[in-house]
Amino acid sequence: MGNIQTILTNRVSGLLASLRHSGIKQVVLSPGSRSTPVAILLGKMQDEGQIKLYIDVDERSAAFFGLGIAKASGQPVLLVCTSGTAAANYYPAIWEADSTNVPLVVLTTDRPPELQEIGTPQTLDQPKMYSTAVKGFYQLPSPSAGDGNAELAYTDYIVQKAVDQACQHPCGPVHLNLPLRKPLMPDVDQVVSLPEQNIFQTKLTPVLTSAAKQHLTRLFAGKKGLIIAGPVQDGHQNAAEIAEFAEQMNWPILADPLSGLRGYSHALSTGDQLFKAWDKLPTDFQPEVIVRTGATLVSASMINWLANKSAPVIYLDEDCSWKDHSLSTTERIAAAPAQILPQLSDLKPAVSQWFERWRKLSRTIRKILETATSFHPLNEPGVASVISKNLPADATLFVSNSMPIRDIDVQFDPQITSTQVLCNRGADGIDGVNSTALGVASQLQNNYLYIGDLAFFHDLTGLMMARKYDLDLTVIVQNNDGGGIFSILPQYQEKTQFEKVFGTPLDLKISAIADMYDAKYCKITTAGELADIIRQQPHGLTIVEVVVPRQAVPEQQDHLKAAVADRLQEFLDENHG
Amino acid sequence: MGNIQTILTNRVSGLLASLRHSGIKQVVLSPGSRSTPVAILLGKMQDEGQIKLYIDVDERSAAFFGLGIAKASGQPVLLVCTSGTAAANYYPAIWEADSTNVPLVVLTTDRPPELQEIGTPQTLDQPKMYSTAVKGFYQLPSPSAGDGNAELAYTDYIVQKAVDQACQHPCGPVHLNLPLRKPLMPDVDQVVSLPEQNIFQTKLTPVLTSAAKQHLTRLFAGKKGLIIAGPVQDGHQNAAEIAEFAEQMNWPILADPLSGLRGYSHALSTGDQLFKAWDKLPTDFQPEVIVRTGATLVSASMINWLANKSAPVIYLDEDCSWKDHSLSTTERIAAAPAQILPQLSDLKPAVSQWFERWRKLSRTIRKILETATSFHPLNEPGVASVISKNLPADATLFVSNSMPIRDIDVQFDPQITSTQVLCNRGADGIDGVNSTALGVASQLQNNYLYIGDLAFFHDLTGLMMARKYDLDLTVIVQNNDGGGIFSILPQYQEKTQFEKVFGTPLDLKISAIADMYDAKYCKITTAGELADIIRQQPHGLTIVEVVVPRQAVPEQQDHLKAAVADRLQEFLDENHG
Repeated sequence: MGNIQTILTNRVSGLLASLRHSGIKQVVLSPGSRSTPVAILLGKMQDEGQIKLYIDVDERSAAFFGLGIAKASGQPVLLVCTSGTAAANYYPAIWEADSTNVPLVVLTTDRPPELQEIGTPQTLDQPKMYSTAVKGFYQLPSPSAGDGNAELAYTDYIVQKAVDQACQHPCGPVHLNLPLRKPLMPDVDQVVSLPEQNIFQTKLTPVLTSAAKQHLTRLFAGKKGLIIAGPVQDGHQNAAEIAEFAEQMNWPILADPLSGLRGYSHALSTGDQLFKAWDKLPTDFQPEVIVRTGATLVSASMINWLANKSAPVIYLDEDCSWKDHSLSTTERIAAAPAQILPQLSDLKPAVSQWFERWRKLSRTIRKILETATSFHPLNEPGVASVISKNLPADATLFVSNSMPIRDIDVQFDPQITSTQVLCNRGADGIDGVNSTALGVASQLQNNYLYIGDLAFFHDLTGLMMARKYDLDLTVIVQNNDGGGIFSILPQYQEKTQFEKVFGTPLDLKISAIADMYDAKYCKITTAGELADIIRQQPHGLTIVEVVVPRQAVPEQQDHLKAAVADRLQEFLDENHG
Repeated sequence: MGNIQTILTNRVSGLLASLRHSGIKQVVLSPGSRSTPVAILLGKMQDEGQIKLYIDVDERSAAFFGLGIAKASGQPVLLVCTSGTAAANYYPAIWEADSTNVPLVVLTTDRPPELQEIGTPQTLDQPKMYSTAVKGFYQLPSPSAGDGNAELAYTDYIVQKAVDQACQHPCGPVHLNLPLRKPLMPDVDQVVSLPEQNIFQTKLTPVLTSAAKQHLTRLFAGKKGLIIAGPVQDGHQNAAEIAEFAEQMNWPILADPLSGLRGYSHALSTGDQLFKAWDKLPTDFQPEVIVRTGATLVSASMINWLANKSAPVIYLDEDCSWKDHSLSTTERIAAAPAQILPQLSDLKPAVSQWFERWRKLSRTIRKILETATSFHPLNEPGVASVISKNLPADATLFVSNSMPIRDIDVQFDPQITSTQVLCNRGADGIDGVNSTALGVASQLQNNYLYIGDLAFFHDLTGLMMARKYDLDLTVIVQNNDGGGIFSILPQYQEKTQFEKVFGTPLDLKISAIADMYDAKYCKITTAGELADIIRQQPHGLTIVEVVVPRQAVPEQQDHLKAAVADRLQEFLDENHG
């Protein structure tokens, strides 16, 4: 089978071909020494048009960038790094991928067994490194002498298994570890006989038994139902089917901002405020049955309401993950709404005023929020509102955790269904947000990121990918000089310690950051300026600094809640008195 | 025992008091919501002068900053963060602490058991998160009703155990996970009865048995010995004892730049070049016995030489970690040199010309290196040389992995012993270097960092701590616009793929970075300018950009090696012909 270089080239080419056949089209590589043959042969595959290769030197950012690609494309993404702490830097994004069921295939290169545990540099316990955060771990055979057919066949089989695991619902990250011996240089001119095709897979569809269908018909037909639609999870695209079922049943959808449902005719965007005011509502809003879809809701008030509901909750658990920390589920169907709801297309709807009653209430709350949100001076809910109203059609809005996603939950009320809202809403970290948004931007059009100054700073290195790959992203940095979210938590009352341990003012010079990355930059203070920039749909990396007062956050929150409570009473007196 | 707040305050105060009694004096906190009671009570302890508290919003940087404090102070450092991916960001520094035996106590706060695995935000498998990277994991009891005495006593005991584990050789990281329930606000005015004192520990000293002493006497007395001194490990301070033993025995010390030994009378700094030229040396340099101390050597040529040595190697394995990937050890003593060598103070030395022969050879190599290193135009070995020669007394030089530590290995030849050289030389990552250097700078005086542009960029957020805590650090950024180290590896020959997958040019605007952090900045090109700045001992954060050509790296390396080989022959012909 020839010399060491031939063997190395053959095995690594075989591994990469198997990954390509299994559906890997995009790769994020962080350069290093041990990964040399993989890197060079990936470069060759890119030249041959077989894959799209991104290079990102900060592995933490690289993994989040890959997460963004996978989120936006719905396809598994390969991450490749060298041995040592490089691999440990992937960890936050791997946990997020595990939490939101994003298919990542992590290929770490390693030193061979005979260099483990004896003080060799950059040699860690990689096989156990990702602990329970990955769905599967596979130690690949190190290229060695012999004819290698058994090793190649094994690698091809394991790669198919690993990528399948990553892409089977619930999707998630898998880990391949490849020990490599020196010399590490492959022969790029070598002609390699590669694995030819994958095992053919027969597809199945879940169908309701007639008993199950009868049971659901009894539960749903003619009933006053509510659909509580959580975030899109696991790459499922359910929005159209959920919306159609809601129309058919005359049921309202309380739609999370990440559900993909806002903008559909029966979807309401006011769940957070509505359930905060639940105690004031008359009994004619009481549902007889609740259908829950998607992942954990952004709105805490909706989760609290679910925990105390009095109707049965049927959870369409599309990712089979039992995600329900309201503990409100009474029945569970382990399938996606898009698979189940069309099988119920002949059910009788609820009475016509049922949905109308909710729509009217929701419109009232929306009007109150409009009036109560302050645009002079521009505050945090105001920023979220201006963004929500001015996004172009087909825009993708990536939203940071912490305050931005909460404000978008309240303010985002589109009239169209083509705006996509995304967020790392699984582990809910403020890390890797710039990178994930840029990964998304590498796949989609009209990209916006809405983020606070802390999260923007946390992933400062991530912005490099925008300059390197000429990505279009307009970053709206809501700069309140620190951790605004803590101001709405009880510790805000503990004034002596607050600013020191929670306020965390960074006094960021955002213009210097823009300068560093050759980004367009502007600092604005009014709603009009913000609306103008968003509507311009800027190209390249644009950083828009919106200065808002942090100290005002608790007052704004109280103000909105009080406004809704007050004026809702008038509405109810008029309509349900 | 009172209400929930009283219980919470009592338990968390007790935990922190136990940590303080066990030796925690410095804490790095990354703010978050779940860690609220710990954060607030740490703020109170700082006000009372019981601890020094640092706040760092990027947990990856925070952990490396804590690593730097622990490295420089020799004391265990406490890291505190909230739940979720925050904890995962600590991972790279935890692996480095595990690899270099640095005592870190990681306190992650968590959601309580009843919120695990059901889709609660920011809830990951924290108990298994750090896998095999930590020496111990302890799940602390969540504060709950009852008199709490048993919980407090248990926490006090476990904290003593955990901190002891972190500080027992081999030192390393330990993990405490604290589940907390809402409400999370403690009462800062509450008077708490705290654990009073630790279990008294009786100390032991390892003493050689008389048989062992006889055996070592036979091995060492009158023999031509070499001491190969690797990096200081595990907080051991062995330099004085090793140097004294070398003088007593008339043996040379081949001293790694991280051994703390360079500058001592019998320590030689030319090991890397010397062993590269070993084949040319006459047999009168052949040692009869080799004593190895410390961790894995920076110099690959010294490791290769050890692997092929013909004399017995006695490894004083101070951190009991069997770190010897040269596999050259023939005998092993599981104790620190400072414990063992003074017990051999009556041994007869080697013949007097033995050390003189090595010293003369080493001086010759040093002179050749001086002549062969180019300062016009300034190149990478030149930068390392200028830094080495101009550091003030009592300076601390933190060196990045990749090329800087290799160049310092060759060029650092101090005449004094008070310059300290530090590096994250365990997992050998280029991550977290700025942060570790700043952690060190928070403890010591006259701090310098020598780093390449990739590593500097990788930990860009880490620089924030300099501005926030007014730390003095002069950062010498050797800017070769990319990954210079790859140019000395075989892949440099693969020109088609090289620049794309290894060169990784970032085109960093270092002046914008300096602007962002309010750092003093200058860009220099000559040895004289660099020497001037180093000698000025600047205050605050100073960023010195030294532009060097990346493409020249392989030529420089070849040039130095060839120069030594050539001129060494002349010297040997004259002296050993």
